[in-house]
Amino acid sequence: MPRTRVDTSAEIRAVAAELFARQGFEKTSLREVAEQLGITKAALYYHFPSKADLVRGIVQPLLDDVGEVLAASRGREPEQFLAGYFDVVLRHRQVFELVIRDVSALAQLDLMEQMLSWREQTYHVLVGEDATPAQIAKATVAIGGLQDCALTEGPVEEFRDAALAAAIAALRS
Amino acid sequence: MPRTRVDTSAEIRAVAAELFARQGFEKTSLREVAEQLGITKAALYYHFPSKADLVRGIVQPLLDDVGEVLAASRGREPEQFLAGYFDVVLRHRQVFELVIRDVSALAQLDLMEQMLSWREQTYHVLVGEDATPAQIAKATVAIGGLQDCALTEGPVEEFRDAALAAAIAALRS
Repeated sequence: MPRTRVDTSAEIRAVAAELFARQGFEKTSLREVAEQLGITKAALYYHFPSKADLVRGIVQPLLDDVGEVLAASRGREPEQFLAGYFDVVLRHRQVFELVIRDVSALAQLDLMEQMLSWREQTYHVLVGEDATPAQIAKATVAIGGLQDCALTEGPVEEFRDAALAAAIAALRS
Repeated sequence: MPRTRVDTSAEIRAVAAELFARQGFEKTSLREVAEQLGITKAALYYHFPSKADLVRGIVQPLLDDVGEVLAASRGREPEQFLAGYFDVVLRHRQVFELVIRDVSALAQLDLMEQMLSWREQTYHVLVGEDATPAQIAKATVAIGGLQDCALTEGPVEEFRDAALAAAIAALRS
């Protein structure tokens, strides 16, 4: 018999993120999420009235954490931002991969705009507001490369410092 | 009235890639591709008997070109590989983005294995066969960052050299 409530919306988000990762946002229904949790659809709706709400609930913590790192890095050395960004991507790895792989689903929410605004702010922090295309290219290598590292499986404590040093070297090249 | 043949399979691939880019592999049917081209389904089937054949027809040229760059770079300086890789990604930008964003669709074909083998070979070319996690992290920043640059819209002649210099700096950091 299905449970009629779950303890936290965190449990729902974790299970939904798992399903989204396996089969994509589009192909996953709220019904499937409820079944997987062993709860009724009504119990799920109580926490997340629509799939859009659920997707936002999953992605927003990542966006909030990146926003925090950005805010804390304004006017500081790029090292601080790069280290903070690496750790946020690492911490939200599963959701981050979802986001990269299902950009069209995000475009339907307002999440896409938030992500584009990130990229903009990241460039400001790393190479300033009036950066040339060449400077932006260096920042792109630094941030894009670092992100790929944070998404790599493996012994993170053995490669975090090397990844950060490589990103800084790219930025300063 | 629909045309009964198209001049080349290249035309089909271009239109299909466009549709795949807009709505994903999964959601695009062969019927839609035929309609978009104004040809009959029979004419489309003549060139590509299944959607898997069509996807392979679109992705294979990219894989072949990367394979060529890898083969030509064995035992050479990493600069050569990085420059060749940048140009291949740039040339196949649209398909490359499709591939990144729809990994699950590729997993159903044998394309996924080819791509994983790439990554392996890329590390060999850049940091040798017995690389440490730290060396692999540097190579990941170089190649991942360079790839992001090649996928960026903008005046490529103004940032290609900077992107390559940044990737080399990351690798040698």
